Amino acid sequence: MSLTGSRPDSAAEEVAEQTSGLFPGRPKGKIMTVTKYPAKQHWAKVAKNLGLTEGLVYLKGDVLKERHDTDVELTFRQESNFYYLTGFAEHDAHVLYDLKTQQMTLLPYKLPEDHIVWMGMPPTQAQLTTKFEFDNIRWSTELTAAINESGASTLYVLRQEDVPKGINLTVDAEQLKDAIVTARMYKSAYEIEAMRKINHISSNAHVALMKAAKKSQSEIELDALFRYETARFGARAQAYEPIVGVGSNAATLHYGRNSASFNGNHDQLCLVDAGAEQGCYASDITRTFPLNGKYAGDAKTVYEIVLQMQKAVIAALKPGVQWEDMHRLAAKIAVEGLQKAGAIKAEYSIEELLEKHVDGVFFPHGLGHMIGLDVHDVGGYPKGVARIQAPGLQYLRMRRELEAGFVVTVEPGVYFVEFILNEAKNNAEISKYMDWTVVDRFAKVGGVRIEDCIVITETGIDNLTIAPKEIAEIEALMA
Amino acid sequence: MSLTGSRPDSAAEEVAEQTSGLFPGRPKGKIMTVTKYPAKQHWAKVAKNLGLTEGLVYLKGDVLKERHDTDVELTFRQESNFYYLTGFAEHDAHVLYDLKTQQMTLLPYKLPEDHIVWMGMPPTQAQLTTKFEFDNIRWSTELTAAINESGASTLYVLRQEDVPKGINLTVDAEQLKDAIVTARMYKSAYEIEAMRKINHISSNAHVALMKAAKKSQSEIELDALFRYETARFGARAQAYEPIVGVGSNAATLHYGRNSASFNGNHDQLCLVDAGAEQGCYASDITRTFPLNGKYAGDAKTVYEIVLQMQKAVIAALKPGVQWEDMHRLAAKIAVEGLQKAGAIKAEYSIEELLEKHVDGVFFPHGLGHMIGLDVHDVGGYPKGVARIQAPGLQYLRMRRELEAGFVVTVEPGVYFVEFILNEAKNNAEISKYMDWTVVDRFAKVGGVRIEDCIVITETGIDNLTIAPKEIAEIEALMA
Repeated sequence: MSLTGSRPDSAAEEVAEQTSGLFPGRPKGKIMTVTKYPAKQHWAKVAKNLGLTEGLVYLKGDVLKERHDTDVELTFRQESNFYYLTGFAEHDAHVLYDLKTQQMTLLPYKLPEDHIVWMGMPPTQAQLTTKFEFDNIRWSTELTAAINESGASTLYVLRQEDVPKGINLTVDAEQLKDAIVTARMYKSAYEIEAMRKINHISSNAHVALMKAAKKSQSEIELDALFRYETARFGARAQAYEPIVGVGSNAATLHYGRNSASFNGNHDQLCLVDAGAEQGCYASDITRTFPLNGKYAGDAKTVYEIVLQMQKAVIAALKPGVQWEDMHRLAAKIAVEGLQKAGAIKAEYSIEELLEKHVDGVFFPHGLGHMIGLDVHDVGGYPKGVARIQAPGLQYLRMRRELEAGFVVTVEPGVYFVEFILNEAKNNAEISKYMDWTVVDRFAKVGGVRIEDCIVITETGIDNLTIAPKEIAEIEALMA
Repeated sequence: MSLTGSRPDSAAEEVAEQTSGLFPGRPKGKIMTVTKYPAKQHWAKVAKNLGLTEGLVYLKGDVLKERHDTDVELTFRQESNFYYLTGFAEHDAHVLYDLKTQQMTLLPYKLPEDHIVWMGMPPTQAQLTTKFEFDNIRWSTELTAAINESGASTLYVLRQEDVPKGINLTVDAEQLKDAIVTARMYKSAYEIEAMRKINHISSNAHVALMKAAKKSQSEIELDALFRYETARFGARAQAYEPIVGVGSNAATLHYGRNSASFNGNHDQLCLVDAGAEQGCYASDITRTFPLNGKYAGDAKTVYEIVLQMQKAVIAALKPGVQWEDMHRLAAKIAVEGLQKAGAIKAEYSIEELLEKHVDGVFFPHGLGHMIGLDVHDVGGYPKGVARIQAPGLQYLRMRRELEAGFVVTVEPGVYFVEFILNEAKNNAEISKYMDWTVVDRFAKVGGVRIEDCIVITETGIDNLTIAPKEIAEIEALMA
């Protein structure tokens, strides 16, 4: 099939062994040996969630797209549900799964013969069945026939618009989505090892940025370096657009320009929120470090507060814990720390500060989210659970009790956002809690965030992210 | 407006001066001082092509998109026609141009207030009118009103589906496209300097790959390095997916996996077809070099043929020349060279070889194409001109007489494509011309392509690409 627009997901496997030497002398956890993608295991979970023993499930892979009215092909990225149930990252493919026979059929794109000159020879059926868990291979042109000949009476699909024309089966576009979402929430062993690998590659890139910071002159350089340090290990795609912001840019939560010059001033913090993707699995890591290699003054104070927030949450994570309580735990440590540092007046109790949501002034986003095939992965809110209407908490991307097999980000932060601080100054009820002289001084710090990707296990957690975050560690490697 | 998903086009300007030192001691042509984007000059050309002195023109900028059913934002890239007439690279914007008053109104996306925390403060109207040539700024929410209040009777648009609801004007979706295409064919001075700049950045990256090749171990590394060496100078986007192919991978014309290990074998050619984009302007450059730094044997022979093809075409370019004649010139040199090298039997005349399209076996793609805001830019085929039905020529992306102001790629190549060679072996009419012993030996070379971006001037040409291509130059810098 066409290789055009494809990404080096399989290439990643070829260089997998290269990454095993990424962290000489540092803890590396287990690096997996890349095995066949466990599509059948994932199908079994979906089938169980559907509670059905017969019927045909159909998923449509993503199609290759061009930019606007041009022939510029956009970088192809497989649709996540399709990847979850195939491991197949090529464009314009289809998959069928027979719930009765548990047979999986791939229908790859049939490359026109005169395109072989441009695209190279497509893989043979034997190559596809060796590399993947497909039982049968038919061409995408045979899709309607393959469905109609299946002997099933109902076709389960994600979206009504995916259903090909000329289908004889009854179509059910209601049940499949929840079944897949519920399956994807609990990561399989393969998925966890895939995420560990991309976390190691991204962690390595964060270290490279720390090491390069003193001699760098702009956010552009560090942004480019992050992409390079992940791409050269086979992770050419980013799980999301990186954020590289120095000084007050770190207080724009989704800053994405990454374009400011340091203007020779290395006496500022740099916040890097960046994680690459490999084999469609995301990483999501934030580190905040001083461009000159030394945490000092207010920057150090704020950093220590955030580090304490993050470590306290990670220590508390386990199955059965409610996610919003973890947010509240981080918020509590934030106000305690800011009060101790003098930014919040000493005479108010922590209970009052939290009741009035003073934490939301400095920690205005949610604590973290599910991560997997998508950086903000499926399953954040159970059906019927609404957002909490309160500063900070309202932006939580997840409200659930933690369970073993979840992978979540833990990403608390403390920021001095001009827009929010101005609102707080104009709000007498909030303003009274602040020592504005101290807050305005702290505002020069910009913002700090620290973020790791964490597996919830039966007994606690498994931190996939290995980039250093202790002040002493970071200062040592930047020295 | 939202900065999310935006690319560092403006960032590029901030580091423009950094690139001026890219080529110490090497010819650098003029590097432009970045000025305001000449949108009004482009509008004047479009208005002239329309032949209208009244009416309102409306263009819709591209919208920010998310991946499938997720919240993963796709990297934003402005639609080329919109950029051509605004220079504005932010998402969800609109532009109106009054043909009578020659007033240009930008309607940027109105960021909801609570998004400022995430996206930062949007630029003020004053900042927008200072940085760009807009006469008026209104919010995107006022689009329908702005159109209806214009006093014009006809609204000219590119696509019927772009027309907002509630418009009182007569809509014309027929005339605008050709007027813009014809304007975009002839590059303005600003555009040529923008393309010179991105050509210099991409040329520099090609040099970096040549220098890194001996110590590199895989296509992945070189691919990553190209992206890094362009991104660090502010060109974060590629104009197209790079091609990095060693050995026989170079004979897959649109090879895009860029994933092969060299397996310790540096005695092979590496074809790199890669060009970054900056400020929405594309570059498109191919270089083919030996991983070990020395052209030798059959690889050197094939390289010399292609270099001769390319230099002969560039020497012949000038206004009035028919593009397909340039393809034929390259094809003639290819068969002459391959005959001299023994791959084509000596007893056949060049005329007969060309008449039988033997050139198409080795040079199966078109010579080149227009380049500008898109890598395959508008204006390749005038109305009513069809493709030539012959090997190689059928894939020409352009059939026109060259005119001053065009920018084209000149990218001849000689390849040994297994699929084509097998077809030729099975075709008695073509097979008889070949000395298959020699062809099969040459097949180990894979393929060679050399590509520059060339401006057609009144008096000849201006080559924007400055990456070295002479054997002695490349060997010297790889030594």
